[in-house]
Amino acid sequence: MAAAKPENLSLVVHGPDLCLENYPIPEPGLNEVPRKMHSIGICGSDVHYWQHGRIGDFIVKKPMVLGHEASGTVVKVGSLVKHLQLGDRVAIEPGAPRETDEFCKIGQWSPTIFFCATPPNDGNLCRFYKHNANFCYKLPDNVTFEEGALIEPLSMGIHTCRQAGITLGNKVFVCGAGPIGLVNLLVAKAMGAAQVVVTDLSASRLSKAKEVRADFVLQITKESPQEIASKVEGLLGCKPEVTIECTGAEAAIQVGTYATCPGGTMMLVGLGSKMVNVPLVHAAIREVDIKGVFFCNTWPMAISMLASKSVNVKSLVTHRFPLEKALEAFETSKKGLGLKVMIKCDPNDQNP
Amino acid sequence: MAAAKPENLSLVVHGPDLCLENYPIPEPGLNEVPRKMHSIGICGSDVHYWQHGRIGDFIVKKPMVLGHEASGTVVKVGSLVKHLQLGDRVAIEPGAPRETDEFCKIGQWSPTIFFCATPPNDGNLCRFYKHNANFCYKLPDNVTFEEGALIEPLSMGIHTCRQAGITLGNKVFVCGAGPIGLVNLLVAKAMGAAQVVVTDLSASRLSKAKEVRADFVLQITKESPQEIASKVEGLLGCKPEVTIECTGAEAAIQVGTYATCPGGTMMLVGLGSKMVNVPLVHAAIREVDIKGVFFCNTWPMAISMLASKSVNVKSLVTHRFPLEKALEAFETSKKGLGLKVMIKCDPNDQNP
Amino acid sequence: MAAAKPENLSLVVHGPDLCLENYPIPEPGLNEVPRKMHSIGICGSDVHYWQHGRIGDFIVKKPMVLGHEASGTVVKVGSLVKHLQLGDRVAIEPGAPRETDEFCKIGQWSPTIFFCATPPNDGNLCRFYKHNANFCYKLPDNVTFEEGALIEPLSMGIHTCRQAGITLGNKVFVCGAGPIGLVNLLVAKAMGAAQVVVTDLSASRLSKAKEVRADFVLQITKESPQEIASKVEGLLGCKPEVTIECTGAEAAIQVGTYATCPGGTMMLVGLGSKMVNVPLVHAAIREVDIKGVFFCNTWPMAISMLASKSVNVKSLVTHRFPLEKALEAFETSKKGLGLKVMIKCDPNDQNP
Amino acid sequence: MAAAKPENLSLVVHGPDLCLENYPIPEPGLNEVPRKMHSIGICGSDVHYWQHGRIGDFIVKKPMVLGHEASGTVVKVGSLVKHLQLGDRVAIEPGAPRETDEFCKIGQWSPTIFFCATPPNDGNLCRFYKHNANFCYKLPDNVTFEEGALIEPLSMGIHTCRQAGITLGNKVFVCGAGPIGLVNLLVAKAMGAAQVVVTDLSASRLSKAKEVRADFVLQITKESPQEIASKVEGLLGCKPEVTIECTGAEAAIQVGTYATCPGGTMMLVGLGSKMVNVPLVHAAIREVDIKGVFFCNTWPMAISMLASKSVNVKSLVTHRFPLEKALEAFETSKKGLGLKVMIKCDPNDQNP
Repeated sequence: MAAAKPENLSLVVHGPDLCLENYPIPEPGLNEVPRKMHSIGICGSDVHYWQHGRIGDFIVKKPMVLGHEASGTVVKVGSLVKHLQLGDRVAIEPGAPRETDEFCKIGQWSPTIFFCATPPNDGNLCRFYKHNANFCYKLPDNVTFEEGALIEPLSMGIHTCRQAGITLGNKVFVCGAGPIGLVNLLVAKAMGAAQVVVTDLSASRLSKAKEVRADFVLQITKESPQEIASKVEGLLGCKPEVTIECTGAEAAIQVGTYATCPGGTMMLVGLGSKMVNVPLVHAAIREVDIKGVFFCNTWPMAISMLASKSVNVKSLVTHRFPLEKALEAFETSKKGLGLKVMIKCDPNDQNP
Repeated sequence: MAAAKPENLSLVVHGPDLCLENYPIPEPGLNEVPRKMHSIGICGSDVHYWQHGRIGDFIVKKPMVLGHEASGTVVKVGSLVKHLQLGDRVAIEPGAPRETDEFCKIGQWSPTIFFCATPPNDGNLCRFYKHNANFCYKLPDNVTFEEGALIEPLSMGIHTCRQAGITLGNKVFVCGAGPIGLVNLLVAKAMGAAQVVVTDLSASRLSKAKEVRADFVLQITKESPQEIASKVEGLLGCKPEVTIECTGAEAAIQVGTYATCPGGTMMLVGLGSKMVNVPLVHAAIREVDIKGVFFCNTWPMAISMLASKSVNVKSLVTHRFPLEKALEAFETSKKGLGLKVMIKCDPNDQNP
Repeated sequence: MAAAKPENLSLVVHGPDLCLENYPIPEPGLNEVPRKMHSIGICGSDVHYWQHGRIGDFIVKKPMVLGHEASGTVVKVGSLVKHLQLGDRVAIEPGAPRETDEFCKIGQWSPTIFFCATPPNDGNLCRFYKHNANFCYKLPDNVTFEEGALIEPLSMGIHTCRQAGITLGNKVFVCGAGPIGLVNLLVAKAMGAAQVVVTDLSASRLSKAKEVRADFVLQITKESPQEIASKVEGLLGCKPEVTIECTGAEAAIQVGTYATCPGGTMMLVGLGSKMVNVPLVHAAIREVDIKGVFFCNTWPMAISMLASKSVNVKSLVTHRFPLEKALEAFETSKKGLGLKVMIKCDPNDQNP
Repeated sequence: MAAAKPENLSLVVHGPDLCLENYPIPEPGLNEVPRKMHSIGICGSDVHYWQHGRIGDFIVKKPMVLGHEASGTVVKVGSLVKHLQLGDRVAIEPGAPRETDEFCKIGQWSPTIFFCATPPNDGNLCRFYKHNANFCYKLPDNVTFEEGALIEPLSMGIHTCRQAGITLGNKVFVCGAGPIGLVNLLVAKAMGAAQVVVTDLSASRLSKAKEVRADFVLQITKESPQEIASKVEGLLGCKPEVTIECTGAEAAIQVGTYATCPGGTMMLVGLGSKMVNVPLVHAAIREVDIKGVFFCNTWPMAISMLASKSVNVKSLVTHRFPLEKALEAFETSKKGLGLKVMIKCDPNDQNP
């Protein structure tokens, strides 16, 4: 694909290679809006598709545009679209159902859902992208494009903390201080959690956690799961009502099982190996509830939170690269430097 | 009762009269702690018993000590008490069940509950008071006595907002800017509400609401219920998901019915006349849920919130009087001056 | 009504008149199925549109086909339809959203929903009718067409009892023994309610209630609301945890308010006059939850119940008329004779 | 202990031995009732204490009377007891809190709870036994003593099915056809489950499951967990919304993880080895909720269900022995013969 003029520069994964290529500018369908992309965050899954060519059963079999944490500006409007206008700044929900099946009807994710940058569907790490207008949300004037792009990871925090039933005065244990750990920390505090302890292997990540209001941080070295659970209890003054496990490591899941208080909840957000060895009886007899999280439905709620300043995600962004330097951005993300790496797609506006 | 020495000065309602009298210092039972009282807030119900001699079916038939928003210091410990020690600073939960009936077993209030300053039970507006130790909660060092006394009204906010299911990004309408309205405002924000509008007849109360973080205030004059509902919607940009009605006025309940969004919840906290004329069909067909609140179970949660500074109730206190001037304090409260009037019972420590 | 050949006989309301007219046979859109109609129940709302020309803000301004409790056979399949085939026997959910708005996304009813026989939308009391295929549900072989048509009223019972949170061992009070009262009785028992008392003015309706497993029935005469509430308590041995008010009468809502136990729930299903005078304080201080019901999402659940025989609705049908005698059917329904009147649209199959 | 007259024959575990001994007849405290015991079921835990001397951290260090599934007759009444009279037939809830701690206050089990036949507390497999009167429940005339004794295992089914959120039309998978599996089957049906499949290794247990209304049974032989999950799905026509795992076997927990539908719930009732190897990611990404069960609070609900005949537990009793033959009864239970073995303590009344 050797297009002459760079009309729609896109970041494409070709097997083990990442390339910037020119794709055609898309024409919108009846209920679609094409958007001039502005800010797109790199997610761990983007890096994973590039490095391993697959996540579970989702396999990259043909070139795929990456990116699904995105915001941009509406540049054309499909004829059936009523709630958006030319020039509207929008955040995009990357999953859009293709049909009104029984899952959709009750507000859950359809198994046949379209999801950006999940094979075989292209993502939106490009200059121009069209999307189902019902899943593009207008941003208020006081919410930046980057905040709009961060709604996707923030949504994972919102969905997780709500499923966990966090409430006023709760003690919460967040395992892992990466972007997902930190959005959970932020949302837990916004829901009224009294104290949150965050654990990680990395001192630098923990110092970021401190910066965004973690009450306690704990750097893990060689302790046994029971020892770590005991330290968490010591810091909080009691066992946490909610544990949010964001690493997927077997040892961390064991820690969470020991740490969570009777009647409490452990959320499994991080995903690791298929089979794990866990002290399930220890959880069961104490009525600890173990829950996963998969789908979201949270864009309007997130926008309401951002507009009212009840949560502040801005400081999660540690690096910015123009789209032309997307490969450098991915190298940075791959090395685990910083937290959230943003790619700026609009050559005329590289602001947050 | 002409006791010689003022060993346990107590504020007693005798029919229409309020008197300061000397009561004997109580001896604790096996599971009780006597406490040297420190700070006690005046509640609307205290004033009501004084002015009207009854609230509903609860009638003051013999002299009764007032007061149920209280904190103090443990001065003796019953032999079965394990969790408290001499000198512990404690907040008191005024309702303590007398027996383990079916209500107690599922965490609800027993119909036979003991409740401070509800006829025929004496309250704790006095120098020395004993109480079921299981319902005395140790205050952390960073929580003041006055905060401890404010846990009782704060609990009403906690219980109401939790029953209302307030969650992240919610728009909330609080009707009434007295102490109960304001604790609901504070708690709604602590649970992640995005925007709260508060209405009242009084401009000075509304300015206090602004001071404690109301996003919008609206002074009511002569508008119809529909007009007020429409103004609330205008301020929030949509109908509120939750309405918290704290006045008990028929017109205000009508406003709440019109104002609340489909699928939303209206909490009835204020209690007015027995029969009210309301547009119930308007609520029912839109699945608006109408709920009352009666019991609490919230002291540990409130202490956790106060200790972690996730809610700030200190500015609710507008007046302080020593116990000797309790009658002046009640006159102040009766006139509706300020918000929360505190009575300071310890002659040696009149600090917050 | 001068159509040459009776290709699609339809029952149409023209102001105060009901007429059988020939309408064209509809052609399906991409995601639609036309159906040969089989059995259609007459709902109170059908009779109300005929008699009063409106329900609340929904006004019949032009001729409208009635009918929304329906089942039939698929006779053609739109090209996008995957889950249905020619000849499938289906029940129809009368409400189908027109767009994927924020209400749809969380499983609630869109304000712009299409609903059969709600002005200005035509219903399906006719020979041939097309409908959004996603809202047509295949009936198992052991579920009859009439059971399929009864899913609509049964859904109201399912939705109400689930919103009421009925659980094992509950005592339930159903106010009104019409079709909606009786489906609530049936569903409450299917959810594990221990005892249900049903009240009505009509002895014949109550004898039907007895027939479908009401534990107690109570005929209302001149008693005050408090007296009726007291009799209900007497029959059940305690106040009911759940009251389901199906009449809409002010006095009945008062009864429910007095009758429901502390912490219980009163469902408002019947809709009467706009303003009602109710003892709301009596409900509020006892934490009685007052809820309306509007939307449903219950067809698959209802089919599962009917197929497994966990609920038996067949005996609700008391009258059957061929489509040609639809006017006679409506007269029967208007007079309140029997319970559910079925109209049989297929001249070749008038079986249940 | 060589008492002369057999005044209170009791079944006592002494290390590896079971002995019938004479204990003194207890005198009741203020809030206690002594009871003449009638019917007592043998629980797996009774057999386990006898065979292994411990369950987890609960170790039999001194002779302990067994038995905790019990009913009997009140023969004396403590002076504070109000709700019971001499001669009342009662079922006993074996767990009774010793103090009103924070767990009790919210309706949960206190860590310091007294529990019959859990070391070091004696059980009630004897002629005369006294118990906290608040945890003795009067049986209606139409509920037998044996039904009263079966409330304990029935409660496990009630608590499990309620925590699982079973609702109308659900497909349920019960793993294990022992007494606990079968009470879960019974309760699931009573809550409106459409179809229940039960698996076990034993054909005779499965035929009992069929007898008490299992829709499908599946005998396990050598299949892999995935194969069994697939067969369960085949029988139900879809993956079950709820799995109730009653065996504690690692392989069975794996089956449940694979079998449960997205968004469904797996209850862990059976307790096996401390560490288990499970495909937790498979559960987490599909939002399968994994929950244990520990406490109950269900006696009044169970009595209401038994009195109204909404559940029939009588056929669970397969063997009866007089107290004098208690050792033979325990041998029968140990061999896994039949389901529930009842011991009849009243020499004058050996009826159900």
